[in-house]
Amino acid sequence: MKIIYGIKEIRDLSKSLNMGFVPTMGALHKGHISLIEKSLEENEETVVSIFINPTQFSPGEDYIHYPKTLEQDLEILKKLNVTAVFVPRSDEIYPSDFDITLGVPSLENLLCGVTRPGHFRGVCLILMILLNLLKPQRLYLGRKDFQQLTIIQKMCKDLLIDTEVIGCPIFRDLDGLPLSSRLAYLDSSLRSAVSLFPKALSAIIQSIDNGNQDSVYLKENFTSLIQREESPFYEILYADFYDKETLQPIDDVKKSIFCAALMVKTLEKSVRLIDNIPFEISSYYPQSEKNILLKCIES
Amino acid sequence: MKIIYGIKEIRDLSKSLNMGFVPTMGALHKGHISLIEKSLEENEETVVSIFINPTQFSPGEDYIHYPKTLEQDLEILKKLNVTAVFVPRSDEIYPSDFDITLGVPSLENLLCGVTRPGHFRGVCLILMILLNLLKPQRLYLGRKDFQQLTIIQKMCKDLLIDTEVIGCPIFRDLDGLPLSSRLAYLDSSLRSAVSLFPKALSAIIQSIDNGNQDSVYLKENFTSLIQREESPFYEILYADFYDKETLQPIDDVKKSIFCAALMVKTLEKSVRLIDNIPFEISSYYPQSEKNILLKCIES
Repeated sequence: MKIIYGIKEIRDLSKSLNMGFVPTMGALHKGHISLIEKSLEENEETVVSIFINPTQFSPGEDYIHYPKTLEQDLEILKKLNVTAVFVPRSDEIYPSDFDITLGVPSLENLLCGVTRPGHFRGVCLILMILLNLLKPQRLYLGRKDFQQLTIIQKMCKDLLIDTEVIGCPIFRDLDGLPLSSRLAYLDSSLRSAVSLFPKALSAIIQSIDNGNQDSVYLKENFTSLIQREESPFYEILYADFYDKETLQPIDDVKKSIFCAALMVKTLEKSVRLIDNIPFEISSYYPQSEKNILLKCIES
Repeated sequence: MKIIYGIKEIRDLSKSLNMGFVPTMGALHKGHISLIEKSLEENEETVVSIFINPTQFSPGEDYIHYPKTLEQDLEILKKLNVTAVFVPRSDEIYPSDFDITLGVPSLENLLCGVTRPGHFRGVCLILMILLNLLKPQRLYLGRKDFQQLTIIQKMCKDLLIDTEVIGCPIFRDLDGLPLSSRLAYLDSSLRSAVSLFPKALSAIIQSIDNGNQDSVYLKENFTSLIQREESPFYEILYADFYDKETLQPIDDVKKSIFCAALMVKTLEKSVRLIDNIPFEISSYYPQSEKNILLKCIES
């Protein structure tokens, strides 16, 4: 496995590779690994990047303290047998006079964008830069970050970038929570409290499976399941049924994706947890995604 | 010479070519031809695009009436022996749900940006799209549109686009005016009136060559030479000495580029004329650029 730090070196390497690409901010967990394994399966070569992208942190967010576990990450990637890891330096990606704005206006100020100003512009920037450097055939992103996935798919489509953007299923922990590097910020009591989140999601699935398609009722039920009196330490940032392309709220739950975000307040910081469940079943959104969540909750 | 209309076809062609690329809006003149000839000289293959880019026209500008001379343009390109011409359809480049913003904030609202809101974002968009489609080794742009050139160089540098952006010398007409498709809008009396523009520029060159480096005096002299009483049909939009990278006004004329824009008012429309002269001589800005202008004025 090659470890590449420089822009020139990664460009030279990329010229000779037909690759799948998995961008990460490190702190690798099984969610990342499932993306990497999918890329290894579908491509002869797989390149993973590890870069904590400063432009996607809003003011007050956890850029400085974002978990850094480079040595462990490299161990994991070596075992997975990826072709190369790209670990760029921040000042090579963003020199001091860097000055580009790039975004998808209609999608960036909704959902998480409301409370993370500039976040999705930062995501667009880093992915555009990495795609220009690596020119991968396929790009693997997790469906946990559904708004991010939607925005990057739109950016690649509209700018005619010759990379297929592949959304990968959410990888859930035993209690149903999507794996996320930020879960490390929660102690065990908080962690057990927020397991209400996947439970409330599974309640929506069950209600819809039982024939209830009243979006107002379903949202209210979700909220009441999450906001138990003994849990004042988190707030619901948003929770609604959305159109999968425009990210606008829609009433037709069967065609929607339900997306929600919680802000969990620990003593030291606020931790954002997001999750989603698609209700229009297709090859892209298979029935299995709902079943995996239901199984976690049952067991 | 291949004439290509479709996105899929140009992408397929581009995969096998190592090319120089000259983007145009058609209405080809000797300025364009000088860019194409430079590309033909420096690359095995040269691709030219002809596309009147709607997103770079500000409200009220001449998008609908922009000169369209496709047949003549294709004749010219055939004789020059370019590899291919790309003539995309507007609705394939910009489908109805297109929604990307891309720009260089510090450079786009100065000089021409003051009176052309959104113009440079439109230029960034179309060039990003064309670069993604064609992936050329070299991109040829004219130095007449100096702000455009500076912005595209900055965009390519900051986004790590693997294309060399080459600024080509201004191609001047006999009276010293830079060739421009929009000159066609001027009748002969207007045309002869605006020939004051290159004369006033050459006066700056001569003053500086004679040792006068007082930027305030030089600008005042330029303005007084242009604004003759009998010429109330144009106004100076800007005229100053600028830093070549930041496009901020600077006092050190020897390190600057002098850029100016006139808005000429005909009965039917307003026509923007721009010009510039670099004063820091280098391999990129050779002495010959000044000499060519001086010669036009003398003869």
